[in-house]
Formats: sequence, C-alpha cells, structure tokens
Amino acid sequence: MTESFMAEEKLPTRAQDFSEWYNQLVLKAQLADYAPVRGCMIVRPYGWALWENIQQALDRRFKETGHQNVAFPMLIPKSFIEKEKHHVEGFSPELAVVTIGGGEELAEPLIVRPTSETIIGHMWSKWIQSYRDLPVLMNQWNSVVRWELRTKLFLRTLEFYWQEGHTAHATQQEAMDETRQMLDAYTDFALTDAAVPVIPGKKSEAEKFAGADITYSLEAMMGDGKALQFCTSHFLGQNFAEAFEVKYLDQNGQLQHCWTTSWGLSTRVIGAIIMVHGDDQGLVLPPKLAPYQCVIVPIFKNDEEKAAVLGAAKELKAELVKAKIRVVLDEREGQSPGWKFNDWEMRGVPVRVELGPKDVAKQAAVLARRDRPGREGKISASLADLPVTIEKLLAEIQQALHDKALAFRRANTQATATYDDFKKAVETGFAFAGWCGSEACETKVKEETRATMRCIPLDQEGVLGAGAPAGNGKCVYCGQDAGERAIFGRAY
Amino acid sequence: MTESFMAEEKLPTRAQDFSEWYNQLVLKAQLADYAPVRGCMIVRPYGWALWENIQQALDRRFKETGHQNVAFPMLIPKSFIEKEKHHVEGFSPELAVVTIGGGEELAEPLIVRPTSETIIGHMWSKWIQSYRDLPVLMNQWNSVVRWELRTKLFLRTLEFYWQEGHTAHATQQEAMDETRQMLDAYTDFALTDAAVPVIPGKKSEAEKFAGADITYSLEAMMGDGKALQFCTSHFLGQNFAEAFEVKYLDQNGQLQHCWTTSWGLSTRVIGAIIMVHGDDQGLVLPPKLAPYQCVIVPIFKNDEEKAAVLGAAKELKAELVKAKIRVVLDEREGQSPGWKFNDWEMRGVPVRVELGPKDVAKQAAVLARRDRPGREGKISASLADLPVTIEKLLAEIQQALHDKALAFRRANTQATATYDDFKKAVETGFAFAGWCGSEACETKVKEETRATMRCIPLDQEGVLGAGAPAGNGKCVYCGQDAGERAIFGRAY
Repeated sequence: MTESFMAEEKLPTRAQDFSEWYNQLVLKAQLADYAPVRGCMIVRPYGWALWENIQQALDRRFKETGHQNVAFPMLIPKSFIEKEKHHVEGFSPELAVVTIGGGEELAEPLIVRPTSETIIGHMWSKWIQSYRDLPVLMNQWNSVVRWELRTKLFLRTLEFYWQEGHTAHATQQEAMDETRQMLDAYTDFALTDAAVPVIPGKKSEAEKFAGADITYSLEAMMGDGKALQFCTSHFLGQNFAEAFEVKYLDQNGQLQHCWTTSWGLSTRVIGAIIMVHGDDQGLVLPPKLAPYQCVIVPIFKNDEEKAAVLGAAKELKAELVKAKIRVVLDEREGQSPGWKFNDWEMRGVPVRVELGPKDVAKQAAVLARRDRPGREGKISASLADLPVTIEKLLAEIQQALHDKALAFRRANTQATATYDDFKKAVETGFAFAGWCGSEACETKVKEETRATMRCIPLDQEGVLGAGAPAGNGKCVYCGQDAGERAIFGRAY
Repeated sequence: MTESFMAEEKLPTRAQDFSEWYNQLVLKAQLADYAPVRGCMIVRPYGWALWENIQQALDRRFKETGHQNVAFPMLIPKSFIEKEKHHVEGFSPELAVVTIGGGEELAEPLIVRPTSETIIGHMWSKWIQSYRDLPVLMNQWNSVVRWELRTKLFLRTLEFYWQEGHTAHATQQEAMDETRQMLDAYTDFALTDAAVPVIPGKKSEAEKFAGADITYSLEAMMGDGKALQFCTSHFLGQNFAEAFEVKYLDQNGQLQHCWTTSWGLSTRVIGAIIMVHGDDQGLVLPPKLAPYQCVIVPIFKNDEEKAAVLGAAKELKAELVKAKIRVVLDEREGQSPGWKFNDWEMRGVPVRVELGPKDVAKQAAVLARRDRPGREGKISASLADLPVTIEKLLAEIQQALHDKALAFRRANTQATATYDDFKKAVETGFAFAGWCGSEACETKVKEETRATMRCIPLDQEGVLGAGAPAGNGKCVYCGQDAGERAIFGRAY
C-alpha cells in the first residue's frame, strides 16, 4: 500500500514537538494505525514484522533457559481476580467485562485477561503435586486488555501484545534466581538486539506490580529525556500460590506453597525503539530487528539503463538473500530515486544500496548508512564483496546506535545532591539522587516535579560510567540517610 | 511435569469408545486441559509446541506467496457485525459481548471477534484508494471466540487459535485465483506436513461461510470414519467490500468495489492429527510436526552402566541436534525403561532410540518406529550413522502415515448409487454420491442419516483413485440429474 498522499507530508521535528513527531511517524511509517474502538491499535505489516523479529530474539532466549510456550484462555472468571488482595486493587479499575455470551446474560461475568497470574495459579493448583513437578517454566505470547484512559500508539493502548512468563519453584531462592535471570535475558536483548541502553533496577513499593513482593524493571531514556519502562520481572513470593493454593509435597512429605515469578515485555518496546533511535527524518531501526536491513534503490533514466540496472539489482538481491540479509528491492514505478531515498529513510532501513548504470558498469554500488545522513555515511563498494561489506556495516551500525543512545542518556542524567539541581535535571532528563526509601518523599517529589522514582539501579556505577561523581548519601528530598541512589524522571 | 498418576491409567481402545479415547488421550498426553470457563481450553506445552510447528509450516507458505502478518484488535464495535446481512445472521447467536469497560457501562457494546472480516473491511476502506494499493495480502495469527454450546478439546471450543488470511483485489478473477491458491497451500501442508490426505472441494450453500459467495474446504476422514473440516478458503465476492465501502480508483479513474477473500486454519487441525494417525497406544505424530521427532531412552542397571550409557546418550543427542533433528533424552529418575517406552509411545514420538551398555559397547543402538509397534518396527543401527539413518526413517514414517490414512479413507468411502447403500456407507465412513444440488435433498439426507454434504470434490477422480466405479449421474436422494458427485458423511 502506497498511501502516497501521506508520504508527501513532512514530519514536525523532534525539537518542535516530540510527541507529534512520534504520533505522525508511527502512522507515516505504517507501523500502526488507530482502531475504530477508542484506545485500540492496529499493528500494520511493517510494525508486525518488527514485532516478529523481537519475538524471535526473545523466544530463543526463553527456550534456551528451559521455558515452554503455552496458551491460557483470554476469558477469566471475575471471581479469580478477587482472590489476591493487591492484585484486585490494582486491576479492578482497568477491566473489560464480558456479561453476555451466546445471547444470554452470564451467571458469572468474565473478564478479558489484563494478565494471567490468576488463571495460571488456578491451573497450577491442579497440575503441581510434588517437588518432582517443579520448576514449572512457562511463557505465552498473547494480547491483554487494560481499560486505559489516556492512550498512545504502542506506548499505552487498551489492548496490547506481549509475552508473559510464569514460573513456579520449590524455594524462595530459586524463584528469586529466576526473576533475576529473566531480567538479565531482557537486558541482553535490549543491549544486543534493540541497541537500547537500559538501567536494570528495583521498583519502589508504590510502583511495583499489584501482587508482587519485588518488581524489577529495565528503564530507558527516550530522545526527549523522558523515561520508559522497557519491561518488568516480578518476584511474586507466595502471594499467588497462597491465593490459589498452589502447593507441592516436598522431599520430606511436607506440603509447601510454591514460590512464583512473572515477567513481561510488550509492544511498548517498539515505542522505545522509535523514540530512542529516531531522528527528524524518521525511524532509525537497529539492524538486528529491522524488517528490512537493506534496501536496493535502482537508478536509471531510460529503458536501456533500466534493463541493465534492474538485472544487476535482482542478482544482487539474490546474493544478499543467500547471505541471510533481509533485503528489499524498490521497483516501484512512477517514483524518483530521491523520493524513494526519503521514503526508506523515514522507514528507518539501516543500509541503502544505490545502484545506477555507472555503478553497474564498474561492478560497484554506493552504500548509505541510515544512522549517518549525508555524505559522511556514504561508501562505495564492489558488488562482489557487497554481502560481506553490508554484514560488517550492519554490525557497526548496531553498535553505533547503542553507543550513541548511551552517550545521550549519560549526558542527560545528572547526579544531583540538592533538590534545586534535581528539579532542573528532571526538566530534561534523569536525576540520579539519594532517596531515603520512604513513600512520603517519593509522593512529594512526584507532586512537585512530575518525576517518578523509576528504579534503584542494581549497578549503581553503571548509570553514569566510571569516574562519575558519587552520591552524598542523603535523600534529595528529606535529607535523611539514603542507602542507595535512585533514578528519577518523568515517564511515559 | 510428570503427573505420573495419569500415566498409569490405560486408555480405552478406539473400538471401545473412540470419543473417550480421544478425550482421555488429549489430557494424558498433556496436549490440552479444560479451563475454568466452560468450553475453553488450555493448550499445554506439548500441544503448543505442535501448534508452533504447524504455524511455522504455514507461515512460510503464506510469506512465500506474498502475504504479510498484521494484528487487528480483538474488540469490535457491535454495529460492525450488523453491516453484512448474512454475516450477522451467522454470527449473532455466537457472540461474547463486552458491556463494561473500566467500571462503566459502554455506550456501544463491543464484541470479542468471532472472525475479523468486518474490522478489516472498515480499515481497508481507509487504506485502499487506488489500484496501486492492490492487492492487499494479509494474515493474522490470533484467537477468536464463538459461543459454542457443545464443545470438545481442539475440535470445538469457545476460544480457539487460528490464522485468518484476508485479501483484497482489483478483479473477480484475481480474488478467485487467491481463494484457490490458498486452498492449494493448505492442501500441500495437509499432505506434506500433517500427512493427512484431504479432499479439496466446494461447500454447499447451506454450509458455506456467512457472508461468502463460495466456500472451499478440505475434508478429512478421522479414524472412526467421521468427517472433519480441516480448513476453509472463502471467495467473498464484493459482499464485505460493499458493506464497508472498500473501493479503489481503477486505471481509468473509475471507482470500483474490491473483491475480497478470507481463509483460515485452526487448532482443530491438532484434533485431526490425533484422530487420523492415533492408535490404541496413543498419539502417532507426523515427523514434520512432532515436537520431538526422536526420544533417546537410556537403559542401565547400575552406576557404572549408567555413566557409560548416559555419556554416550548425551553425545548422540548433540549429534542429532547438529543434524537438526528435534530430540529429547529421557533422563527421568525412578522410572523403568519399559515405563518410558510406553510414555513416549503414548505421546506419539516417531522414533525411539534404545541405548543400553551392550549397544554402547558395539557403538550401535536399537531404533523403534512408533508407526510399526513391536519387533517389526525395530532396526539396529550404528551410532556413527544415526543422524542419517534417523533422517531417512523420519521421511519414511512421514510417507507411511499419509499412505496408511489414504488407504483407510478410500477403504471407507463408498461410491453409492442407491439410497440404501448410501445409508449404510455413512454408518462407517463417507458416501460419494450424485447430488442434484438442491438444499431440499441435502436437508432430507441430513435429517434421515445425520450425514452432511461435506463438499463437492474439485478432483472427482482423486477421491477413490484410478479405476474406481464412476457415478450414475443421478441424485442419490431424488433421482434427478446430478452434474457431479459429492462427499457425504457424519462430521465433527
């Protein structure tokens, strides 16, 4: 689908209006569109291809660590949600409720799952009997519904796509190890595949998952300095095991409650990729996840040139496919090469191959890097070497995107000792500041600055890098002793 | 999860009670379980791994034919379903309706999608403007909800998993070609991957999809002689394009309605695989789709033997993984080899490798074919050749399953000229009989014999094979002229 009318309109710059830049880019790049139901989205082919690459990158990691995929139903008896007291408080206001089925009022209303801890707990109580049945390591790819009021494509929608991992263990330690292992798997994915530098850390009591003992998250900085929670990993203690009577006979014949975890990552991550890497021309996609890693734009003026160029372009495409590079050849009629350059730039394809009659004659092509616009990003390379050259280039771009984003985050993260500095820091980025741990200070800070406590970084050194100023050990709000420093920022 | 208590219980034989054999086998093999909501199912890891293999086999075919995956929302405004008159008649009685969202009564109730023609039509009317935007070739993997009253795991559940393909075209011919192309893709999958011989054909007016001009289906015969509709491909004409105003400007600047298709295949196919290939010992899975193609069962009596055998078994496993054979090594403690043989037989793993100390000493192993129980299916093979031997064996088994199922179907399909023969035939299998095409005869036959018109086979010769008796050209019910013969049978 061309929808050429849209491609002609210019994006606002990020400096002009970051939020509008984002909204228009998502539509213009055809990643997603608004559905006819308020707050729901349609993920279009280009967006879904990106999500499929994210799924594969994660699914591989889940399977390598022994997890198996399953499918639990989307409809859950309403009474289930009420069995865990924090869970019901957190989720009740957000539920979509089915009250009619097959033309009749239902005796018990069903909710469309907002998450699946409850129904999984219910089934585990049936499946798990003995320590021999543990650990149970499950994951499911699905969509969930939460009745959000303020929505934004990918970042917050009524229905969103995600994976939810759920595991049950014999001991507290094992469950804690699992919680951290999955946080590590997400971190590896973020750094390696999404090229998004993330801060792994612990959420506050106020911000943790409804029903968890501890919530860990990865926090990332967007291109406007705001924070985005990339994903979460929850240590659920025995809360759900108690609510749903998930018990096992241990090796001594004693009945014990299981220890459980859950962890999830959603299509929100697409929003993060857009906002971390994108520039005023549009998307800049990390090569490992880009639906197309490389676009070939043929250039010709007459039929003779066209025949020679398209012939060479098709051969080249076949060579790149053979080298397992995801490539598209832009054969669209009636559009100039310049128009095509802009279009693929907007769509964020990492490498563009320009192929004209002179290039074909020289058995060469011009490569343009999406992450370095203009002359600086252009290289001439011989056709014979192109698969190898492009492979190297993709690896370089992948690393460059990460490094640039990390530098940006560090430049916009201030180690703040005074509340004045703190207030200034969260205007444009993160404040890294002492916090006494009290919900009172957290609430005051939020009310006064609109910045929330994003996380207490697990690696306090890693936030600013080696040689950065250490904290003064005092809470930035109340001045009381603070054990560790926390990241504060305004968040999506 | 062992759930060893279940593994001890014997299945009823298929002759004793085919339906109970099926129900118990699905639970015992841990393919699926009953959900706490009536009529819903949980697909367990073994069942979902099978579905993932089915998904991959199909998704590859969809992408090779130019289709792109997308995701449309699960919630659809109720008014949408009412825009196409046959569609609303067909689906209204089966809807699950969300009437409450975020604690408030909704102004317009939302339905949980039973299928997505309507919402996709709505979006296409926005996206499609010109002939340049066509064809649109989309597919989505999701779950849908239909409020079924009589349910059975995999075969008919309130929520089920499937893919739904949706395409829009400029001309009738293109849309018809697409409808048939996807039927061919499904046929290739059925024969090649599922090893299920299918009869491609056209449904009657009474049995076609609500809103289609023509519905094609693949019909398969289960192990009890009953029919199962394996999947469908619909030519929707301009019905949905008119209802949702999906129009394009053609090359002459005239506004035209699009021609659309849809096609789907669901987790029902897992039911077909169970019922076509399964035997009294349990599942018999086709190698191309089996989660595990091969199981290694180590055999030892003492620690010394154990060390030698497990060492060799792990090396062997690594070799098989390298050869891209999906293999599991059964290291479970406390269970005898014989118990493990039975367990994996029940789970339908195509090839079992038995490895004991004598085998290791001889650098050999015993292979047992799941599809040929007992001595007949056993081969001794050298460890060094095992990857190659097993690969060949898997291909042989794949073909043997198909051939056996085809022979069974043909043996249980009678070309019937008289209504008496017809009635006898549908007691145990299919009747292949002349039909005048009238709904009156179809209805009478159904009332009197419980057999429905499954399809008019596209390849009339292929049903019974070369040399089979031809029809007499008369309708088996009314005796009027019948252009073609149709398949009749009692169906799931």
